[in-house]
Order: sequence, then structure tokens, then C-alpha cells
Amino acid sequence: MTDPLTASVPARDLVEALARRSQTVATAESLTAGLLAATVAGVPGASTVLRGGLIVYATDLKGSLAGVEAAVLTTDGPVASTTAAQLAAGARERCGADWGIGLTGVAGPDPQDGHPPGTVFLGVSGPDGTEVTALELTGERWEIRLGSVRAAVSGLLERLAR
Amino acid sequence: MTDPLTASVPARDLVEALARRSQTVATAESLTAGLLAATVAGVPGASTVLRGGLIVYATDLKGSLAGVEAAVLTTDGPVASTTAAQLAAGARERCGADWGIGLTGVAGPDPQDGHPPGTVFLGVSGPDGTEVTALELTGERWEIRLGSVRAAVSGLLERLAR
Repeated sequence: MTDPLTASVPARDLVEALARRSQTVATAESLTAGLLAATVAGVPGASTVLRGGLIVYATDLKGSLAGVEAAVLTTDGPVASTTAAQLAAGARERCGADWGIGLTGVAGPDPQDGHPPGTVFLGVSGPDGTEVTALELTGERWEIRLGSVRAAVSGLLERLAR
Repeated sequence: MTDPLTASVPARDLVEALARRSQTVATAESLTAGLLAATVAGVPGASTVLRGGLIVYATDLKGSLAGVEAAVLTTDGPVASTTAAQLAAGARERCGADWGIGLTGVAGPDPQDGHPPGTVFLGVSGPDGTEVTALELTGERWEIRLGSVRAAVSGLLERLAR
């Protein structure tokens, strides 16, 4: 049976790109709830580059597990650019990785915190700093979550290619 | 597009069973690397029962993130019944959930720490204690990882039905 995640996302390219640099990655995931790390782990040999991650589905875990500041969570909310940036930095730091990826957003079917389904913030934190990309994805719950994973893998690949 | 994870595992049953009890769940995952939590999160409304989780792919993160004792990791190793039990208890405690699920094992294709692919330990920790089940799964990497997720969801459903 083919892995439906790793087959639809350039996860193998990411594992190879990180392995060439002897670098590692970790994730802090809200709407994807582990789907990003699980997709990377689908590649045989991923253990050389994947450290682990933090699944921060509940808002308070974004603070306690990943270190997002309480003021950010109350002022900007769980679905925000600042939150994605701190998730990425927290994943990198708490999992001891060269790169951290943070994903937070609304998978649907209902809006959340005033944001429609498909609003997603992707943070990528590395040795040269943290960058956030705002995504507007379409489709059903699964498509939005898988689209977030695809954007995250592509986003880190682009950073590595600079 | 159908969610290929949630469709092949009784995740909806688990979310409903937990919601009926007003109870929550968290995971600590090694070989599945977030696939279990991601599968539960595929169910709309999962946020009422899913707290989050710890992806402990690297051995040292099993200690630092999930609280597995260093002596257990050096003596019994990362793929062991004792490790699965402490992962489950750690997920429950560190994520503030009623139930914690720990998964550790060998997804393959190569053996690891003297265990063949398909050797998996599933820990389920709840208000009445922690239990571990040893699994011997067959198939390729994806089948072993998805089989681990299926066993975990079924295992917690069985505990809830007692």
C-alpha cells in the first residue's frame, strides 16, 4: 500500500536536502495536528533529519509546550502570524533542531476566532531567523490540512535553496 | 477529497466516545510521528476531545519532551514496553489530558535496536492506570504505521467500553 501522504508532497526531496546539509527539522502543529511530521517520517531514513515535534491543538498547549507568549495568544489569538512565528521558533528550540516549522490555521468546516476555513499561517525558523507566510487555502477539511503540509514542505525547501 | 486516514480508522467513534464522557486525549508518538493525533484531528469537532501531543522521533526527545526515564531508555531501549508505558503517562500528564497514548516501534524497512519491522508497543494511560500491548504488525512502512494508529484508536475505544 502506498503512503498517501509522502506520495503527494515533496517530503523525500526535503529529507534529502536536509541530509545533504546534515541539518534537522522539528514541527509545532495546530490544525495539521502532526500530519506534517508524519509525512516527513514516511520517507525511509527520515530519522537522520526529523527530530520530532509538538502537537498544540488546544490553545493553552501553544504556550506550555511550544512557548508562545500568553500576551500573543490573548491579543493576536491562536490563528495569527505572530503565533506561527513563535510556534516555529519554539519547535526549533524545544526539539533541538536546526529548523522549526509552525502551522496554525482554520481547517473548517466552521470559522474559528473570526477567520474563515483556509486561513493558515506558516512559520519557518532557522539559523538565519524566522519568516511567516499567510496562506489562503480552499477545499474541505482534509484538503486544507494537506495543503498546509505541502506549503510547509515547499516553504522549507525554498529556504534551503537560497 | 476524502481523508484517507480518518476513513480507514474508527477515529469518529473515538471522538464521539470521548465527547460523551467529556474526556480528552493526548499522544506521544515515535514511529507514527504524529499520524495518530492527525487521524483523530481529521474528525470535525475533534477539538473538544483532542488536547495535542508529543512527537518523539529522536530517542533523546522521549526523555526531554515526554519524561521517559534515562535509565529506561538506556536499559530497555526506545522500542520497549516500559518506554511505551512512560510515553503514554507522559503524554497524559504534559498535555493535561484524561487519556494518554504512547506508540513506539519499528516501521522498517530496516530492523532497529535488535527488533524487526512491525514490532510495536502501544501504551494507554488513563485515570485507572497504564496498560501496554505488544503488537507484531506486518506489511510495508506505511501499513505498519497505519496499523499502529488503528490499534491505538481501537485500544482506547476498548478501554472506554469497559
